Amino acid sequence: MNIEKANAEATERMMEARPVLVGLGKAQDVIPDMRDNLLLHAGPPLTLRGASFGFAQDRPQGGAWERASGPMRGAITGALIFEGKAKNEAEAQALVESGEVELEPCHHHGAAGPMAGLIAPSMSVYIIENKTHGNQSFSGLNEGYGKVLRYGAYSEEVLAKLRWMEEVMAPVLAEAVVASGGIDIRALLAEALHMGDEGHNRNKAGSILYTARLAPFIAKAAPDPGVAADVLKFLGDNALSVLNPVMAACKAMADAAHGIEGSTIVTVMARNGTDFGIRVSGLGDRWFTAPVATPKGLYFPGFTAEDASGDIGDSTITETAGIGGFAMAAAPAIVTFVSGTPQDAINATLEMYEITYAEHRYFTIPPLDFRGTPTGIDIRKVVEKGITPRVNTGIAHKDAGVGQIGAGLVRPPMEMFEEAVVAFAEKYGY
Amino acid sequence: MNIEKANAEATERMMEARPVLVGLGKAQDVIPDMRDNLLLHAGPPLTLRGASFGFAQDRPQGGAWERASGPMRGAITGALIFEGKAKNEAEAQALVESGEVELEPCHHHGAAGPMAGLIAPSMSVYIIENKTHGNQSFSGLNEGYGKVLRYGAYSEEVLAKLRWMEEVMAPVLAEAVVASGGIDIRALLAEALHMGDEGHNRNKAGSILYTARLAPFIAKAAPDPGVAADVLKFLGDNALSVLNPVMAACKAMADAAHGIEGSTIVTVMARNGTDFGIRVSGLGDRWFTAPVATPKGLYFPGFTAEDASGDIGDSTITETAGIGGFAMAAAPAIVTFVSGTPQDAINATLEMYEITYAEHRYFTIPPLDFRGTPTGIDIRKVVEKGITPRVNTGIAHKDAGVGQIGAGLVRPPMEMFEEAVVAFAEKYGY
Repeated sequence: MNIEKANAEATERMMEARPVLVGLGKAQDVIPDMRDNLLLHAGPPLTLRGASFGFAQDRPQGGAWERASGPMRGAITGALIFEGKAKNEAEAQALVESGEVELEPCHHHGAAGPMAGLIAPSMSVYIIENKTHGNQSFSGLNEGYGKVLRYGAYSEEVLAKLRWMEEVMAPVLAEAVVASGGIDIRALLAEALHMGDEGHNRNKAGSILYTARLAPFIAKAAPDPGVAADVLKFLGDNALSVLNPVMAACKAMADAAHGIEGSTIVTVMARNGTDFGIRVSGLGDRWFTAPVATPKGLYFPGFTAEDASGDIGDSTITETAGIGGFAMAAAPAIVTFVSGTPQDAINATLEMYEITYAEHRYFTIPPLDFRGTPTGIDIRKVVEKGITPRVNTGIAHKDAGVGQIGAGLVRPPMEMFEEAVVAFAEKYGY
Repeated sequence: MNIEKANAEATERMMEARPVLVGLGKAQDVIPDMRDNLLLHAGPPLTLRGASFGFAQDRPQGGAWERASGPMRGAITGALIFEGKAKNEAEAQALVESGEVELEPCHHHGAAGPMAGLIAPSMSVYIIENKTHGNQSFSGLNEGYGKVLRYGAYSEEVLAKLRWMEEVMAPVLAEAVVASGGIDIRALLAEALHMGDEGHNRNKAGSILYTARLAPFIAKAAPDPGVAADVLKFLGDNALSVLNPVMAACKAMADAAHGIEGSTIVTVMARNGTDFGIRVSGLGDRWFTAPVATPKGLYFPGFTAEDASGDIGDSTITETAGIGGFAMAAAPAIVTFVSGTPQDAINATLEMYEITYAEHRYFTIPPLDFRGTPTGIDIRKVVEKGITPRVNTGIAHKDAGVGQIGAGLVRPPMEMFEEAVVAFAEKYGY
C-alpha cells in the first residue's frame, strides 16, 4: 500500500469535487436516516468520549445531556421547542435522558452545522450535490447575528425568527435556488477568496455574491414584493448568509475524499463544545477525540475569556477542505475581527503548507501570487512537525441563551492526531 | 501664503467630504446649466488645446469634432440618436460643426463620466450629495459590458439597452435609492477596499454591495416582479454597476478640495481621448493639458496595442481622490486584469505616497497594515520627484462602435504638471 498515492487520490477527489447548491428541503424529507425523534448536532457524538472511558455506559444516551455544554443544551432545548416536543429546558432534558429524543452528529448524516449545529426534523436545509462524484450534503439556514439557536439561545424572539425563516424564507429560497439552475459553491468560494474572504469567519463577499446571484430569482419567487424585500434584506444584511451552504459544500468535498484505503488525510474536524473529533480518510468511521480547548481572540465589549464556551461547531470542515484558517492570507482584513496583523494572516497560511498534502487547484490566494490554499491535512505531518491545524472560529458564551461573545483562533488537541497515527499504524501494519 | 497649510486644508476637505447617493434625475432637470442642445463629455474641452495653439480658432466649436477620437465621435453620435436629434454620424457631425449642438466637459457641470463620458439632456443621472460641504455631483448609469455608448458604440442594440435603462431601470432605481435613505458611497468604498477592490478598474465588491443594499428597495419599487428581477440581474451581473456613483462621489470629494488659495493639490484628472487635462485647487478653473498616451496592459484576444484609442475618460477622478491606481495594494487580484504581479500592486501604491500630501483617513489598505491610501496629488512633488500619477484604465478600440479591447495602466503626461507648477509660481510669485 502506497500512502502517497492514497493521499494524492484523496486530495484529488477533494479538489475535483464540485459542490453545487441544488435546492432546499425539510430535514426529515431529504437527510438520509433522519427520524422524527432525532436531532443532529455539531461535532463528534456527545457520548463517545464518556463511553470510551467507561463512565457513561449506564447513563441515558451515554450521558449525552450531562456532557453537553451550555450552548449545546440551549440549542437542543430550542430545537425541541421549535418541534413542539418540549416547553422548556427541563422537558428537553427529560426527553433526551429518557431516550425518547435521540442525538446524533450531523456528520453521521452527511450534514454540517455551525456552532451547536442543531438540525431538527422539520427544519429546512440546503441540499448540496457534488456534481463530480454524486454525493450529497446538507446544512441548515443561517440565522444571522445576535441571539440565535446555534449559540444556544432559545427565547421567543429566537423561535419567532426560526419560524419566519422556516415558513416564509425557506419556500422562497427553495424556489429561487431551483430557478437559478443551482449555485456552484466552489466557484463562488474561489471568487470570494479573491475578495478578502477566507470562507469561515469572513464570508462577507461570499454572502453578498450569494445574495446578488439569487436576488433576481427571489424577486420572482416571493409571493409579494414585501416578502421579496424581507428575504433580500435578511440575506444581504447577514455577512454569514453563505456560511451554511459553504460548510455543506466543504462537507461534500471532504466526503468525496473519505474512505480511500491507506490515506492519512483528515476528512472531518468537528467540535461539540465538549470534545473535538477528527476522522481520517483511510480509517473508516472511527472518531478520534479529545477535550476541546477555548479559542483565543477578540471579545465583544463586556466579555472575557472567562465567559467563553469550549470550542464548538462543525465549521472546521472549512479548514478540512483547505479554506478558513488555512486561507487566512487571502483575508488580511479579518485580523480586525480575530486579532493579529496582516502578516500573521500570511504566516498562518504558510504554516499550514507544512501539514497539508496539496495546494488547491481552484482556491487561490492573490497576495501569495495566486498560490493554491494548503489542502488535505496529513495526520503524519501534524504529528511529525508538531503543528496542529489552525482554525478560525466564533466564540460562544458558556451559558445557554447568551450567544456570540467574540471570535478568534483555536488549535485542535494534538492527542487526536497522535491517536490516529497509532490507529493507522495498527490497521496498516506500520 | 502657506502652501502646506493650504494643502492640509484641501486634503482635509477631500477626506472629510461624505458623498451620499441621494437620488436620480434627468440630466436636464438636475445638472446645473444643462441645456437642451448640450452634450457633456469626458476630459478637458475638446477644443481647448487646439484653441490654445491657435489652429482651431476658425473652426466650428474650435474644431471639436475634428479633434475628437473615434470612440468620442461614436458616443456623440449615439447620444444624438438617443436624443432624436440625429440619425447617423454624418448628421451628428453636422450638428456639432454647425454649433447647433454644443459640447462641454462633464467637469464643467459637477459631473464625471467613464470613457467617452457622454451625458445627454434626457438621460438619467445619479445625484450625489456631499453631506459635509453641501456640494452635489452627477454621473450617468453604467451600461455594463460589450457594445456600449461609453466606448463609442451606437448600434440599435446599444440604443435599445440605453432606452431600457432610461425607461425601465432608472425609475425603479430612483425610487429605490430614495426609499433606502441614501447610500453612503465613502463608506461603501471603504468596505470594498477591504474586499479586493481598488475602486476604479475593480469594482466587483462595491458593485455587489451596492446591488445587495438596494435589492430590498428594488423589489418594492419595481412595477412587477419581472422588472425587479431584470433590474437586479442587470446590476448584479455588472461588476461596474457602482463605478458611476463612485466616480460622482470622487468628484464630490475632489470638488470639496478645489479652490483653496495656495494649494498645489490636483482636483481633476481627466481625458477626452485626445488630451489629458488636470486642474489644481489653487489655480482656479484653468485646465493644463497635453496629448494623451496609450495605456499599457492586457488586451482581449484578437486585439493589440495597434487597435487602442488614446487614453479616455473621467474615471481618473478616482485616482485624484486617493483610490483606483493609488489603492492597487488593496486589490492584488486585479493583476489578472491589468497585468503585473501582486508585488507590483503593492509597489504601485507605495510609489504614490511619494507624490501625495495625505494618507486617507477612511480608505485603508489591509495588506499595508491598514495604512490610508495615498491621497491628494501635489503637483510640486510630481515634478520634483519625476513621478507621474499611476492610473488604472479600460482600453477602448480606436474606432467608434467596437468597444473595450483591454485594460491596463497609463501615466498622465508630465508636461501638464510642469505647466501647472509654472502657472502656480506665476500666480503666487514663487
